[in-house]
Amino acid sequence: MKGTIVKHSAKVAIAGVGNNISALTQGVRYYANLDAQGVPEADFPGIKRPRVDGLAVYDLDIVAAYDIDERKVGAEFNEAIFQEPNNYPRLGVEMAPIGVVVEKGFSLGEVTDDEVRRIAASLRDSAAEVLLYSLPTGLQWAATAYAEAALAAGVAFVNCTPEIVGRDEDILGRYVSAGLPLIGDDLASHIGTSVVHRSLLALFAERGISLSGSYQLNLGGNEDFRNLREQGASKRQSKLNALAQDGVPLDRVDVIPSAGYVPHLMDHKVAYLNLEGAGWANTPVEVDLKLRVQDSSNAAGVIIDLVRIAAAALRAQQKGFVAAAARLLKSPPMGHPAYEAADIEASFAALSPSAS
Amino acid sequence: MKGTIVKHSAKVAIAGVGNNISALTQGVRYYANLDAQGVPEADFPGIKRPRVDGLAVYDLDIVAAYDIDERKVGAEFNEAIFQEPNNYPRLGVEMAPIGVVVEKGFSLGEVTDDEVRRIAASLRDSAAEVLLYSLPTGLQWAATAYAEAALAAGVAFVNCTPEIVGRDEDILGRYVSAGLPLIGDDLASHIGTSVVHRSLLALFAERGISLSGSYQLNLGGNEDFRNLREQGASKRQSKLNALAQDGVPLDRVDVIPSAGYVPHLMDHKVAYLNLEGAGWANTPVEVDLKLRVQDSSNAAGVIIDLVRIAAAALRAQQKGFVAAAARLLKSPPMGHPAYEAADIEASFAALSPSAS
Amino acid sequence: MKGTIVKHSAKVAIAGVGNNISALTQGVRYYANLDAQGVPEADFPGIKRPRVDGLAVYDLDIVAAYDIDERKVGAEFNEAIFQEPNNYPRLGVEMAPIGVVVEKGFSLGEVTDDEVRRIAASLRDSAAEVLLYSLPTGLQWAATAYAEAALAAGVAFVNCTPEIVGRDEDILGRYVSAGLPLIGDDLASHIGTSVVHRSLLALFAERGISLSGSYQLNLGGNEDFRNLREQGASKRQSKLNALAQDGVPLDRVDVIPSAGYVPHLMDHKVAYLNLEGAGWANTPVEVDLKLRVQDSSNAAGVIIDLVRIAAAALRAQQKGFVAAAARLLKSPPMGHPAYEAADIEASFAALSPSAS
Amino acid sequence: MKGTIVKHSAKVAIAGVGNNISALTQGVRYYANLDAQGVPEADFPGIKRPRVDGLAVYDLDIVAAYDIDERKVGAEFNEAIFQEPNNYPRLGVEMAPIGVVVEKGFSLGEVTDDEVRRIAASLRDSAAEVLLYSLPTGLQWAATAYAEAALAAGVAFVNCTPEIVGRDEDILGRYVSAGLPLIGDDLASHIGTSVVHRSLLALFAERGISLSGSYQLNLGGNEDFRNLREQGASKRQSKLNALAQDGVPLDRVDVIPSAGYVPHLMDHKVAYLNLEGAGWANTPVEVDLKLRVQDSSNAAGVIIDLVRIAAAALRAQQKGFVAAAARLLKSPPMGHPAYEAADIEASFAALSPSAS
Repeated sequence: MKGTIVKHSAKVAIAGVGNNISALTQGVRYYANLDAQGVPEADFPGIKRPRVDGLAVYDLDIVAAYDIDERKVGAEFNEAIFQEPNNYPRLGVEMAPIGVVVEKGFSLGEVTDDEVRRIAASLRDSAAEVLLYSLPTGLQWAATAYAEAALAAGVAFVNCTPEIVGRDEDILGRYVSAGLPLIGDDLASHIGTSVVHRSLLALFAERGISLSGSYQLNLGGNEDFRNLREQGASKRQSKLNALAQDGVPLDRVDVIPSAGYVPHLMDHKVAYLNLEGAGWANTPVEVDLKLRVQDSSNAAGVIIDLVRIAAAALRAQQKGFVAAAARLLKSPPMGHPAYEAADIEASFAALSPSAS
Repeated sequence: MKGTIVKHSAKVAIAGVGNNISALTQGVRYYANLDAQGVPEADFPGIKRPRVDGLAVYDLDIVAAYDIDERKVGAEFNEAIFQEPNNYPRLGVEMAPIGVVVEKGFSLGEVTDDEVRRIAASLRDSAAEVLLYSLPTGLQWAATAYAEAALAAGVAFVNCTPEIVGRDEDILGRYVSAGLPLIGDDLASHIGTSVVHRSLLALFAERGISLSGSYQLNLGGNEDFRNLREQGASKRQSKLNALAQDGVPLDRVDVIPSAGYVPHLMDHKVAYLNLEGAGWANTPVEVDLKLRVQDSSNAAGVIIDLVRIAAAALRAQQKGFVAAAARLLKSPPMGHPAYEAADIEASFAALSPSAS
Repeated sequence: MKGTIVKHSAKVAIAGVGNNISALTQGVRYYANLDAQGVPEADFPGIKRPRVDGLAVYDLDIVAAYDIDERKVGAEFNEAIFQEPNNYPRLGVEMAPIGVVVEKGFSLGEVTDDEVRRIAASLRDSAAEVLLYSLPTGLQWAATAYAEAALAAGVAFVNCTPEIVGRDEDILGRYVSAGLPLIGDDLASHIGTSVVHRSLLALFAERGISLSGSYQLNLGGNEDFRNLREQGASKRQSKLNALAQDGVPLDRVDVIPSAGYVPHLMDHKVAYLNLEGAGWANTPVEVDLKLRVQDSSNAAGVIIDLVRIAAAALRAQQKGFVAAAARLLKSPPMGHPAYEAADIEASFAALSPSAS
Repeated sequence: MKGTIVKHSAKVAIAGVGNNISALTQGVRYYANLDAQGVPEADFPGIKRPRVDGLAVYDLDIVAAYDIDERKVGAEFNEAIFQEPNNYPRLGVEMAPIGVVVEKGFSLGEVTDDEVRRIAASLRDSAAEVLLYSLPTGLQWAATAYAEAALAAGVAFVNCTPEIVGRDEDILGRYVSAGLPLIGDDLASHIGTSVVHRSLLALFAERGISLSGSYQLNLGGNEDFRNLREQGASKRQSKLNALAQDGVPLDRVDVIPSAGYVPHLMDHKVAYLNLEGAGWANTPVEVDLKLRVQDSSNAAGVIIDLVRIAAAALRAQQKGFVAAAARLLKSPPMGHPAYEAADIEASFAALSPSAS
């Protein structure tokens, strides 16, 4: 079912074998099965962009993986993705062994030059084109170390987390010098609470409904919600920033990044939104919304685009940040206003020079 | 508190003294009180556009009113607005007599030339600038008759209902010939179920979430919901049309214009929306929303703009449809795509020639 | 896994091969599979009463079936349950042919003595112990005809619908004379809107919250919701009756049996409930609830008890109405207050004389 | 409108002039106004028990008040109830000065015998019959100190908080010896999240729906929700206890006492509940509920009964715990099972010896 120009799959190495990676790789298998059954790509559910530079959503090969959890290190990759605390559901697709064993990654306090050389050598041996950084939020030291290793190995880098990598001028400069793509930081969810809340706040502003108050609660049963319950302050500010727009009085908006860690929700995220306002003659307007999503699918649906962009950019010998990824990230290097829609379209087009 | 150029208030005659008119006139009084208390117009709650050609939201005088309900005909206008079946709440502002008695309007089967002359004479006597048509939905004969009377009297016309007046080429042509503004048809709600549903459907499409199904239920306790429970079919289609947009599979969307007439809700409207879709790897995305609004405030918040546009257009000697009103109507004469944002802005500017 | 006293399965004939029967028979197979896998009956999901007189929930054999839909008549029973307009989901259990072909049932206007004799003969040939009446609501003539046929054949009768059979003194008397059980009318849902609404109204009354208003909306995508949209008046009254209790002002409660027929919901039922009241110092209390269930599972979870009670009663040579079924029906012959908890318990005990 | 036997109002002293007390005293005034307007007590909104031993809900006089917040100490009582951080709404009733100035109460680390004597003397001077303890949760030292002062002054004591007073055998024994009523601990809300959640869990258990998971989130904008966000662990356990009942698997139930402190909610409490379960054939049942109440009205609606019971018990020379209060508390001295419905009724009857 692929197009006439056969592209080889993107070769991706993984740092951090968590729920997002389980969602990504089971999903890739799911879509490969649909393709094998003859389902047209335009009918694939949940896909915004069937092809990036000729790469389909199933054109992804995992070639190396790093973690430090003893339940995962040493395990075959397709078994590691189901180890606790991972709790993304099994999608019912067969995940046969792929011949990749999870290697020990960087450990806190043990990031030496030797270690960077070890990971870089492993990346080179694997022939990876892209290193996908997907550890838990908050480990800046790890993000930096993996970015160094990828640079040393000549591999493109994708940072899914809020750690500062793409926004670090020094690192970005060295990727540019090395002729390598660097894509980050912090992936935007496929459909998350922020984008829904933002839409409704915009609607109130556009229609002239005076916002009297609004709140947003998020809860879930994966490790993120356990962490955020404690350390929600920075996340709260980042989520408030995501809502900022003309006509929205942010001082009347409250965001609770983790209202609760509810284990039986597993990898589901539930969000409750409320907006109260005043319409004509100060009469009340009230909106209540509940959103329920598979949390890690929400990440994987965007990661699939980031890694295809990174691989395509490497092949097209582009370097540094790739504008095509701007809308898929919460914090692109120069902030969102720096990337206009036309630039983004041009960047996507430039990824496929032979196609034009 | 008004601007330096003092404009006299818009002089408006009313056809149909229902909930919408109660909301409109109580609201006008409410904002006049705020102004008298020194509240800046920018702080008025629920107002999108404080001024239209210098006219504030409180710059409205009712100069005549027509109805056929015996509880209203012959009553002082400010008592008629509280007669059953009207059930818009009392807003707690004092509605002193304004010296306008509700006159008998057109009756079904009795629309003669004499009757048209009688209403036209009344309009002329009242010095009305605008006739606001606000009868229950479905009375095409009445909409046409009032449009004829306004034309005969040299008065601008605003049609709040889905009856065909602005879209009637013959009538529109005669308004143009007479040098009179004609604004219609069918006002768009201030913040209604359609606009919220449309936003969420657009979000699914934009993010690549495959819609599996969606529905919208509306219920309320005013006369509209009693009527619609029986005659919802055409309203259903019109509401479905309002949701049509790229990427939205309308065959998976259901709209129930009146799921129920629930008297104790009075003039409140409640809507329930549900959207179910599939994201990455076919995992589910679910959104549930409840909206609660004061139904007739939702109309009045738009009527206030329509009548100010009509009065300003008359004063500026504009004729026929006024593009400034395009977004405030469900069915402008040439359909929505005919009116671009820049045209609408230009039309607003043209209403205030002296201001430039 | 069965108890030590082996009972043979209840032999049941079906009148009306709709969604409820698809739910019933797929469910029986589902639980049989659990049993075969060694799952203890106490761990079966969704089961209130694992055994009735030694009969497990999977101890049910379909021995005959009647319908008039040409898509079903002549078909093997386990294929007929999946014919449109049935839209209960396939549960993923294998439904192998059981050697029962759906026969033509009674048709409107053709209920003759010969026809009754034909069905009665078929029932006798099948060795059925129970005839389960499960046609669409509103066909009194059919309910009566099947009850006559069962009586003629010496078979117990279960009426799942609101038609009057168990409450018909003449019919009940003739079942008593014939020494046969007769169980009806109108099954109570396993967990339905009424029971949830009733609980919340009771809570308001018990706590002294003054109810200002309440409503209940039901919607779904099966044939019931299509029918009820038109003919909801009697159903509305019956549902209001189900809410009647001390301290609840029913004049402030509204019930909409079918707020909408939404095809993509298939056999799911969705209900929205709202209660508004006043607490201390007249300050507001508001409750909003959404319930979502598999509509026909809600019926099947109660039918399984009714047919086991009927079969056990026949075997124990009980006749007429069986008190054990009182709480499982909306309209038992003498009304709910006639059956006290102790009587019901005693009735259950009497079904298993050998067990004591 | 009062009964024929005129009772003088209950004389109550207050420890802790917070939102609950604002709700209580504004509410008392609200009902007094209704009575003055001739509204029958049976029509008072939000009242479960119009009379306790002849005392109406408006038969309450505040005779003394203690606090340590400098915004309240020294202020006239009816001004103090509106001081921040109190944010219970103004109900629109006139709260004229009552001649009571808020006195300085016990301070942490300064509870000396002299201080106890000072408060006791103040209580005696005020002629209080009841001391109502209503400080923020968690101040065991203060609850004990006020209980000592009341005992010394010969005044009945009511403990609204979870601190241990009524369950302290030593203190209870000394109240019994002194012939004084002692009512505690921890008032049950008028209509709170626990009682609603408990009802729905009971319904699932009763109908045989297998609970797969359930959660409860509470949020609000008063000081309680700020405190609980930090110190929710003990509250969580106490709330889980409140849900314990036969057939409910508590290990599948999660309670978040404060999912968020959302200032613009002021004194409103919002709770979200979710229950998911499995019905027949393991098909899903899902319930979502939102509850919104005026948090402190929820307390005041129960406090009004506790103080009337305490005053009536004192007058009837009852001592120690009064069984009439058992259901109105979360933690009565011997636990809930110790107080049967008949005992409670008898206790209410015994409060009005002259009435029989």
